Parts: sequence; structure tokens; C-alpha cells
Amino acid sequence: MVKLSLANPVALKEGKIYVLDETALPKEERYIEVNCLEDALYVLSSMKTRAFGQVLLFLYTSFVEGDTKKVKEAFSSRRPTFDFQSLSDLFESMTKRFGNMKVALEKILEEIERKRRIRAKNLAQILPHDAKILTICNVSGELVYLFEEMLSLGKKTHFFVSETRPYLQGTRLTYFELKKALAKTTLICDNQAAYLMENGYVNVVLTGSDRSTKSGDIVNKIGTYSLAVLSKIYNIPFYVLTQFPKDIDIREIKIEERPKEEVFMWIKRDDFPEALYPSFDIVPKELISKRVGME
Amino acid sequence: MVKLSLANPVALKEGKIYVLDETALPKEERYIEVNCLEDALYVLSSMKTRAFGQVLLFLYTSFVEGDTKKVKEAFSSRRPTFDFQSLSDLFESMTKRFGNMKVALEKILEEIERKRRIRAKNLAQILPHDAKILTICNVSGELVYLFEEMLSLGKKTHFFVSETRPYLQGTRLTYFELKKALAKTTLICDNQAAYLMENGYVNVVLTGSDRSTKSGDIVNKIGTYSLAVLSKIYNIPFYVLTQFPKDIDIREIKIEERPKEEVFMWIKRDDFPEALYPSFDIVPKELISKRVGME
Repeated sequence: MVKLSLANPVALKEGKIYVLDETALPKEERYIEVNCLEDALYVLSSMKTRAFGQVLLFLYTSFVEGDTKKVKEAFSSRRPTFDFQSLSDLFESMTKRFGNMKVALEKILEEIERKRRIRAKNLAQILPHDAKILTICNVSGELVYLFEEMLSLGKKTHFFVSETRPYLQGTRLTYFELKKALAKTTLICDNQAAYLMENGYVNVVLTGSDRSTKSGDIVNKIGTYSLAVLSKIYNIPFYVLTQFPKDIDIREIKIEERPKEEVFMWIKRDDFPEALYPSFDIVPKELISKRVGME
Repeated sequence: MVKLSLANPVALKEGKIYVLDETALPKEERYIEVNCLEDALYVLSSMKTRAFGQVLLFLYTSFVEGDTKKVKEAFSSRRPTFDFQSLSDLFESMTKRFGNMKVALEKILEEIERKRRIRAKNLAQILPHDAKILTICNVSGELVYLFEEMLSLGKKTHFFVSETRPYLQGTRLTYFELKKALAKTTLICDNQAAYLMENGYVNVVLTGSDRSTKSGDIVNKIGTYSLAVLSKIYNIPFYVLTQFPKDIDIREIKIEERPKEEVFMWIKRDDFPEALYPSFDIVPKELISKRVGME
């Protein structure tokens, strides 16, 4: 049996893909077997994995199917905001370079892991000695990497995790992984950020990004824009982890609307009110103090 | 048996106070009998009633106890942000004027009801013909009054209700009462406000206020400040319903911190993570387009 973490939530073993079911966390560590593209699409659409899990799922599914283009098109139709195109391009060029998909896959994964560790190290360098970090959603284990780097530098860290309505990635994933890593962590509701800034609870805001552009704008989980605006008002640095920035206008990126039923998935109620669930919002570069990339 | 609504959630009948249990809504219309100050304090502390319900509960309890001062002190210690002092002063001066508490109570209630209706009428006058109103928390039936006034003016109204984490007053109370009144209503998560403003979903923000000052600053449910900041950025009018404004510095008002357990009361989970629950935040007058008072 495989054993996965949020930092590496998808694995390939004897031709089968295993996915850590994020929707079962933190209650249960449950795995889903993915045997074909159709299985992968189900996992993707139902948000059993997301963020870095999507990257891994895409790479492994492309490898198993032997066709990155087909997988890219199917994945993009399910989660239009995420950039599967760049991943597909990367996989194809690496396959060309190394002559086969298996070696290309290994090289890509090695390189990403190395870059994630370096990124955490670089970020730890610039954070204050007593970092009080407000974050939102989940950055696939990278806050745990950061916490380890902060420890090795003798720096103190206190994470304040926005619960991230409606899907509660903050409550279910980020709080869970940070607590597991024994980091000092406090959960807040999304609408409390201004109060925390006003009252000195936090001195840095740090988020991931689902998409980024070369000009500096990003797309991230709904609610990120408000955090950026408030950071500016309270003069608190706003840092963003980026990957695969593209030379495009941010407005060209399609913002996914998820089913309204998901708004009530984690709330105790049985009827389904009328609701909206735009999944992401845009943060213009003017509000971003620093992007910490993997380039 | 009594029959109460969110517009008038507390009643006095044959010496007994009846409170509509807001924590049971929208599933069930359940009533709590209040026979003494101790019962009233339990209802208040456990947020079985709030907002206008607190006003009514205070007035009836003072009448039943025959002592507004004692009730004011006890109530203020339980919910420090709300202004029971002004209510107590009003009740005392009216009692002096009319010679007995019973008549004073009736006059106060009549006058408040009359003013609430007028306020709704005035507000309907200034709202656009196709009002798309973003709101937060619950204003005790006054949005229903407003909806009725809008109808009578032939104006269209669409309410967007912020769910109002952690206590979900938006989801449980405002959405419920507006739907019951057959108003067009959509629920959103607190962190989606900027997206709605950016994309033209809303053209006015309207909130209540737990406290207001003569200089124009207000205190309201946590999350209101962020809405005000975003309204300013998107140039959307931000209207506030006020009551009993005081000639004090807003910073003198104590912001209540509620028990962290309440953060998880409406979320499916059985452990209790570390969390914060500041209940209110401050909106400075610069961010408020118009206050609609009961003066």
C-alpha cells in the first residue's frame, strides 16, 4: 500500500496511480486507485486532489496514457483555470530531450521537488525572525517545507490559516498538515483577516497561486484578492508562491465556477439554497510585494 | 402559543417572555420561555437571540424585573459591544414621563416599530430601480420591510447574502427570512464579495450596525469592514442602518471575543482546532456613503 502526504499526494506504483483523497481529510487517509483517464477525470472534477496533486495527476495520467495532448485537453475542460498547457509542453519537450517518457517524468519530478525545497529555503531567508503568517487555501505541503526551513534558521513561525470557504481547504488541509508538523497554527474565518491585521496578529501574508503571468498578476483561490487589498492598507507584505508564469494577460484566464452544491458540502444543512461559487479571483501585480517562483 | 418572526423575535405574554430560538432556524421554529433575569442571560449569552431581539429582550426583562439598571449591567457584561446603556436611559426617561413602566414600554415599542417602517421607506426611496444588494449578518426583519417598500415603489430587488461565518447568520436567518418573503435571494461566501463587485453582480452594500457614533463610525459584525473597503474600491455605495448613535470615540467600544468553539458550531467536525472569533469590526465614517438612522 502507498503512503502519501499533502506535499506529494499522488503516486505511481506498478502502473497504477494512487491519489490521496483530500475530501476525506483530516478524518481519514483514504486512497483512490486511478487506472485510466476516466478515473483521473473523476478525481479531478470531484476535487479529490487539487493544486500540486493536479500536477502529479496530470503527469502520471499522461505517462500511463502515453499521450499528453489528449490528457491536457480533457483535464483543461474539467478545471479551466489551471495551466495544464505548460505542463504538457514541458513533458513533451523533456520526452524529446531524453528519448522516452519514463525518464522525462522522473527528471521533471526530481526537478520540481528540488525547486520546491529551494523556494522554501529562499522564502525562509526573507521572512522575519518572528513570522506571523496569514495564509489561505492549501499550498500542498510547501508551508511545511517552509516551517522546516524556518526552524533550521532558528526563526519563529506562527501560521494563521483562513478556513477558505466554501471548500474549507484551510481547515481541512492546511491546518491539518501544519499541526501534524507541530507548527504553531491558528484557524480563522475568512472575514477576520482585517481584524488580525489591524490588531497586529500577523506580519506577512503568504499564498500560493493557481496561475501566474510574467507581468506579475496572479489567479488564486477566491478570497485572495481581498487579502491582498487589506495587506496594502495595513502595509503588510504580501508574498505569492508562483509556478509556470505565462506571457499572457491575466484576463485571458477563465475563472471556473463550481457547482453551488459545493457551497454547502461542509456545512450542516440538507436543503440547497441558491448560491454562487466562483472559485478564484485575480490579484493584480500592484498588490503583490514579492513573487517567489520556481524558475 | 406565541408566533414570532425575525422582525419581532421576542414577545411578552401574561408576564412571560417568549424568545424565538434563532439557533434552531431555519430547521425549526422553537420558542424559549424566559421567566427571570437568569433565563434572559442564558438566552443572551448563547445567542439564542441577537440584534433587535436583544433590544426586545432587554426591555421586557427590565419590565418584568422592574429594574432597568440591574438588567443593563448584567446584559452588558454578557455582550459588551451592544449599547444597553442607551436603551436603559430611554426606558427610564419614558417611565418618568408616563408615570409607569407598562405605558413607557408600549410607547417605546410602538415608536421603534414606526421608525423601522419609516426607515425602510426612506431607504427604498434612495435605492436604484434595479437594486442588487449585498448584505451581511441579519438585520432582524428589516430587509423584509425594505423588500415590501421596494415592491410598493415598483422597484426590483435582488439580495446577495453573505453567509457570515462563523455563526452563519446570513445563511440561517437572512436567507431564510428573505426567501420566506419571496424576495429574490442568492447566498454567497464572505470571501466572494470582491468577485461580485468586480463582475457587476451588486450595485449597493447594505448592513446593519451593532453600534454607531455621532461622528459617523460604526461597529458591526466581523467582515463588515472588508465589505466597506471593497465597496470604496469598486465605487459601490455602502449604506448602514443605525440606531442610538452616541457621542463617543468608536475605539471606546469593547469588541467582544466569542468562544472559539462557536467557530465550528455549524461546520461538520468533531475536534476543536485552535481558533479566534473576534465578533465585530469597526468601519470608519470615510468608508460609509450614507447612514440611515431611526432618529
